Amino acid sequence: MKLTDIKTILVAGAGTMGQQTAILAAISGYRVVMYDISDEILAKGVEGIRKNGDRMVRVGVCTSDACSLALEQITTTSDIKAAAVDADLVMESIPEDPELKGKFFGAINDHCKPETIFTTNTSSLVPSMFADRSGRPDKLCALHFHDVTLSKIVDVMPHPGTSSQTMDLVKAFAESMGQIPIVLARENNGYVFNNMLMSFIGSALSLAAKGVTSIQEIDRSWMGVMHTSVGPFGIMDSIGLDTCWKVTSYWANKRNDTQAKANAAFLKGYLDKNMYGIKTGQGFYTYPDPIFSRPDFMTM
Amino acid sequence: MKLTDIKTILVAGAGTMGQQTAILAAISGYRVVMYDISDEILAKGVEGIRKNGDRMVRVGVCTSDACSLALEQITTTSDIKAAAVDADLVMESIPEDPELKGKFFGAINDHCKPETIFTTNTSSLVPSMFADRSGRPDKLCALHFHDVTLSKIVDVMPHPGTSSQTMDLVKAFAESMGQIPIVLARENNGYVFNNMLMSFIGSALSLAAKGVTSIQEIDRSWMGVMHTSVGPFGIMDSIGLDTCWKVTSYWANKRNDTQAKANAAFLKGYLDKNMYGIKTGQGFYTYPDPIFSRPDFMTM
Repeated sequence: MKLTDIKTILVAGAGTMGQQTAILAAISGYRVVMYDISDEILAKGVEGIRKNGDRMVRVGVCTSDACSLALEQITTTSDIKAAAVDADLVMESIPEDPELKGKFFGAINDHCKPETIFTTNTSSLVPSMFADRSGRPDKLCALHFHDVTLSKIVDVMPHPGTSSQTMDLVKAFAESMGQIPIVLARENNGYVFNNMLMSFIGSALSLAAKGVTSIQEIDRSWMGVMHTSVGPFGIMDSIGLDTCWKVTSYWANKRNDTQAKANAAFLKGYLDKNMYGIKTGQGFYTYPDPIFSRPDFMTM
Repeated sequence: MKLTDIKTILVAGAGTMGQQTAILAAISGYRVVMYDISDEILAKGVEGIRKNGDRMVRVGVCTSDACSLALEQITTTSDIKAAAVDADLVMESIPEDPELKGKFFGAINDHCKPETIFTTNTSSLVPSMFADRSGRPDKLCALHFHDVTLSKIVDVMPHPGTSSQTMDLVKAFAESMGQIPIVLARENNGYVFNNMLMSFIGSALSLAAKGVTSIQEIDRSWMGVMHTSVGPFGIMDSIGLDTCWKVTSYWANKRNDTQAKANAAFLKGYLDKNMYGIKTGQGFYTYPDPIFSRPDFMTM
């Protein structure tokens, strides 16, 4: 299999990341089949794809005309056999459960061509957890996206059984969609950026949860030394406090880390008040026009 | 003691931070007495003060004329009694040894006025380690600077015995020098920014030391998602790999942290080859014109 042989992409999972990767692949000239378990979910997925298409036009990834053409390249199905049969490459963004992912890859393996490449967009798992169940571990690796309208950085990560041909091909595929692949030499939970982000955010949360100083002072401190327009709490508001809580509590429990558990509880306090960040208009800051964006924030 | 009563500042320690805080205080209109243990060290300190003055003119903190006037406001002495007798506020930047700091504060306590305020610029220690030995724990707190030509962020941190009057006065003093004080509610090792920086840098070092991917890919990943002009390894080059190693190995040993020890060893490998970062022209990158500053770095 060469890059030029890749024509049809199976996007599995019609949620946030499935919607983003579907429109990105379609804009890049690929035929896209989006699969999920029900037509209701798929209908919502298509709606989300349109919204993501609009966002990509707004940020200048493509023109409005190119986006309309791309949308025509996307079909949907809840029939797993129909989804698999023409796929040259699979981008999987189904729920974060190794059992579910193993079952999914095992099921499509029976219907896909032998040369079809499998990729997973998992954030919190690693491909070796379900590589054997895919039936083609050498053709499976991670292709992990951050928000495609905010960044072009993607992680390309093998598990111990991934072939170098698969890695090369997936890297070339990412580049063909205008992405910047960060190639990992070996499997590492949390990839590259997410590891750094979580350490950084964990440290900021610890300072606040321990009552060392206020959220505003912590952001001010980072922004003032690093000369950035946003600090860790502003970043968490953009990620979503639910996502931050999910990742923080997952690792806190896995590592039985007392401070991380306190940090998760600190975040939970906001969720209990329906403060999820930018998406609900209120998180650590109030949106639009959060105070950290005001010119006098550093000295107020 | 009120802010307007503060006229004369004793800067203790003629090293990097002493030089920076001396010129900053002088530019801000204070008389400055710089103290260190020998006239040789003080002569080098004065040379460093002049260089820091030039840097401050270059970055626009003050005019060349104001800098020249400020330099006239700085005197030096290796006589601890002469250094202490007129001081209204002390900024201490002597070596990072709690024993040494306790001894120093105890010694000047005998010669200073009863109302004189003591501040420590320690990075790795906390004031409670030597507060009692100062003889005036209520008048002692931390006033911690980052590089004054790169950032105006300063930490103002109490120990459990610091009075609120001392905190208010030191905050006002920092503001009188055009700084942005980050006020901590309680003592915390590593303050605010340094805690976040060390977590972030520690995570980046772990990725490299474990061989997950290259230094360039790690920086690219951070720069590409956060949209910054420098990543963690570029930042370490500007801090100095010796300082990064010192802090990393200090915490690695204190916490008996295996991964942090591996990270310290990774940094040591560069020091052994005389690669200290920007200051030696070679660290993780080659200076001037490091590749991460080139327009094509993200896709090279």
